[in-house]
Amino acid sequence: MKAKVYVTLRKSVLDPQGKAVQHALETLGFGRSVKDVRIGKYIELELTGTDPAKAGEEVRVMCEKLLANTVIEDYRYEIVEPAREAAKAAR
Amino acid sequence: MKAKVYVTLRKSVLDPQGKAVQHALETLGFGRSVKDVRIGKYIELELTGTDPAKAGEEVRVMCEKLLANTVIEDYRYEIVEPAREAAKAAR
Repeated sequence: MKAKVYVTLRKSVLDPQGKAVQHALETLGFGRSVKDVRIGKYIELELTGTDPAKAGEEVRVMCEKLLANTVIEDYRYEIVEPAREAAKAAR
Repeated sequence: MKAKVYVTLRKSVLDPQGKAVQHALETLGFGRSVKDVRIGKYIELELTGTDPAKAGEEVRVMCEKLLANTVIEDYRYEIVEPAREAAKAAR
């Protein structure tokens, strides 16, 4: 089973890395297309468990304790079950 | 219109940051639950355009030129149209 975790800076927090990328995109000629850039983290966890509900709860605790700094960051996650993963891959 | 870009290390590339997080999770008592951790980037672009197909093509070029290092990284992206975004928010 897999968990996909997305950690993003809260809206109110400045994102200098995003601003740097935005500036670089402007330099490359995308200044007119891009209004704003925010950069976050994408974490893939390979889990051993088989119970999605239990896995979800564990991932929530991992986010709270380690993966996200909840003072300045938001997180969301999704649990991907092997069957669904296989179905996705087959598409 | 928004674009969500996911940049991940290729499978064959070592991910020391992921290993560090995995070790930290083990220290926190999640050693039995977590088999592997891979860390990537999650980039949100706020776009000015209104044509999803054109925006998608632009984002692809941005990924190739700047956002991903295609030698060691894979990328995927999705274009989120404002209407769908509003529908999502209303859910």
